[in-house]
Amino acid sequence: MSEASGTIFDKILDGEIPCHRIYEDEHVLAFLDIGPLSRGHTLVIPKERTAGLHELSDAAAAAIGRVLPRLCRAVMKATGAEAFNVVTNTGPTAGQVVMHVHFHIIPRLGKDGLAMRWSAGTIGDDAAELAAEIAAAVD
Amino acid sequence: MSEASGTIFDKILDGEIPCHRIYEDEHVLAFLDIGPLSRGHTLVIPKERTAGLHELSDAAAAAIGRVLPRLCRAVMKATGAEAFNVVTNTGPTAGQVVMHVHFHIIPRLGKDGLAMRWSAGTIGDDAAELAAEIAAAVD
Repeated sequence: MSEASGTIFDKILDGEIPCHRIYEDEHVLAFLDIGPLSRGHTLVIPKERTAGLHELSDAAAAAIGRVLPRLCRAVMKATGAEAFNVVTNTGPTAGQVVMHVHFHIIPRLGKDGLAMRWSAGTIGDDAAELAAEIAAAVD
Repeated sequence: MSEASGTIFDKILDGEIPCHRIYEDEHVLAFLDIGPLSRGHTLVIPKERTAGLHELSDAAAAAIGRVLPRLCRAVMKATGAEAFNVVTNTGPTAGQVVMHVHFHIIPRLGKDGLAMRWSAGTIGDDAAELAAEIAAAVD
């Protein structure tokens, strides 16, 4: 194992720590978050041991993407939620705590533990240049 | 066009409204959000015209998943951000405004327009049953 491993999710993947398993395939494991923001709060993680979403392989990222709608449907069906957020935090400044990529599926059930302050600004005069700069940085 | 179409993203996909384009492939379009929470705030949408992530086809969802790491890397490189959130809001209660699936890539640059209150609860005594119920609901 590399130095990068050793998170709680590694231990779950290795079967050293139990989880409330929901789904598993070759690339993906999903289980209940033990610190839920709402009933049914689910984590979806790649088996690939990568800290940040930006570092994840295309194949692992595609495998997670592919299964997200099915998992969201299942969470909605089991919890009765009609709305949900899917959130990935990458980096401490963004709220990442466990340094292994994870997607949160958070059913919104009225009173729950998530609140987002969404203070939209306006796009800058440099938007065309910025878009071109980001586009040029796509590898 | 079906009744479900007609969002601003349909008009962008149809070329009726311009966008600050960053990336495009057979299934996916990415462009700058015109109401950004931070510089470089990017939207990633499927060309499939679907309101909710839970309704998206596996193929479209996989295509978005596959390209997310590349787009996150490009946003980080162009903006200098070392942290970011990826967020999808599905349903008005979850903050969805445009009824076409979209993933936000939000670079976190210190002072920005996003704040999340994350009040984690504790997992209930019924967690094993709940996990089994969600697992059984996976189609």
